[in-house]
Amino acid sequence: MRMTIDARHPRAIRHDIRAGRLRRTTAGLGQNFVQTNLAVLPRAQAYDFLLFCQRNPKPCPLIEVCDEGSPEPGGVAPGADLRTDIGAYRIYRDGELAAEVDDIRPYWRDDLVAFLLGCSFTFEWALLDAGVRLWHVEHGKGVAMFRTSIACRAAGVFHGPTVVSMRPIRSSDLVKAVGASARFPGAHGAPVHIGDPAQIGIADVMRPDYGDAQHFEPGDVPMFWACGVTPQAVALASKPPLMITHSPGHMFITDLPNAALAVL
Amino acid sequence: MRMTIDARHPRAIRHDIRAGRLRRTTAGLGQNFVQTNLAVLPRAQAYDFLLFCQRNPKPCPLIEVCDEGSPEPGGVAPGADLRTDIGAYRIYRDGELAAEVDDIRPYWRDDLVAFLLGCSFTFEWALLDAGVRLWHVEHGKGVAMFRTSIACRAAGVFHGPTVVSMRPIRSSDLVKAVGASARFPGAHGAPVHIGDPAQIGIADVMRPDYGDAQHFEPGDVPMFWACGVTPQAVALASKPPLMITHSPGHMFITDLPNAALAVL
Repeated sequence: MRMTIDARHPRAIRHDIRAGRLRRTTAGLGQNFVQTNLAVLPRAQAYDFLLFCQRNPKPCPLIEVCDEGSPEPGGVAPGADLRTDIGAYRIYRDGELAAEVDDIRPYWRDDLVAFLLGCSFTFEWALLDAGVRLWHVEHGKGVAMFRTSIACRAAGVFHGPTVVSMRPIRSSDLVKAVGASARFPGAHGAPVHIGDPAQIGIADVMRPDYGDAQHFEPGDVPMFWACGVTPQAVALASKPPLMITHSPGHMFITDLPNAALAVL
Repeated sequence: MRMTIDARHPRAIRHDIRAGRLRRTTAGLGQNFVQTNLAVLPRAQAYDFLLFCQRNPKPCPLIEVCDEGSPEPGGVAPGADLRTDIGAYRIYRDGELAAEVDDIRPYWRDDLVAFLLGCSFTFEWALLDAGVRLWHVEHGKGVAMFRTSIACRAAGVFHGPTVVSMRPIRSSDLVKAVGASARFPGAHGAPVHIGDPAQIGIADVMRPDYGDAQHFEPGDVPMFWACGVTPQAVALASKPPLMITHSPGHMFITDLPNAALAVL
């Protein structure tokens, strides 16, 4: 199975999403552009969250933090509106899912701060570009995600374990896979672990906590990257009065080419 | 002229600084360890400053942000005390220099937040290690620093121009110099400009706004990196009621090896 590719500029894609004409997940949309996780929190929680991201850049690579009350990510998509330009949102009250909607204008307040965090699509693009094969892409599945024994560094009210994504990588591709992803610290960067899952507290690599189980061919090695589920899980565990996120798979597509995130 | 090298572990050096036995600038101290700029602001200004650094990572690479009220940079130097472990500090009131001291315990408050920002010593170490010659190191001078026409992205009350440091680089070393510094985004990373100073608003490359004029040999090209003077200049321009910084040349020496900052 192969992904459908929509090669238009992100502005055109966001326009369709805003107008309600495009409802699918964003895998394969805006193929060469940075897609991001969304987290919206009240200003009262925003300092601790910003500090948490600064202290845990691998799971929480900040791509953009909007001005208080502004839904426009001016640094990465001028003119976009984060209240309408994502296909599906989740509203959490006191850490509990309260609603799933396609427009958060009714929930918007002047004290909300929108955070955009880098996403694995960028480094997967880099891996594929480097010739590294990814089973879940070839088979139209999600990655496998696991809670680990790697503690995040706490910041104020936020603390919890690092969540990782896992991909089986051919042993002959391990070096390429490290190098290609390390160039993108804005999209989780280099892996956090290669090999034995038990060393990072994963009991059974075939039973993910989130996402889809992967398939291993002989010689494949599990490779683990910090995952954007981490900040969302950590934030919700602190039960903020209000938190808004994208729905799984419905990322925000920026105007930033993936290649622009490379450090070298 | 060559720098005196003190090859002890940073803990031992900080101990001597704390005890008042070591008063010199930190160039050549803790040679292979990350040295940092210090900026201390009240919590009321800390969110905007943290956001400013997030939005301007080249001039403001955050290495550590302490918990509110804590002088211990637990992530990079557990057990250290930022109130005593730097040789000289500057106290600013409403943006004006009010005092220069060697101990800020009398000024400390529960609402202060200490920021440590990466410094050019780390990428200079990488340049020298890669065989790039640096005139100012060989001649015991400071670098040349300039205000530029490159605006920082504003955050709350903080806005202003990027300040850069300039080093003459042999044209045969340009590629090496880009590569070696780009690996260290935590220490200003890759240059922001190579060549014609006028393109970034510098009228006379021989007349720096701060630091020492440099010497050009035939074939040398001016190379410009974002500079840690930027956040200090920007913060003071907003006239915060209180701001504390290190004094020029008296950096905080962390326990983090320079090599640990490399992304690849």
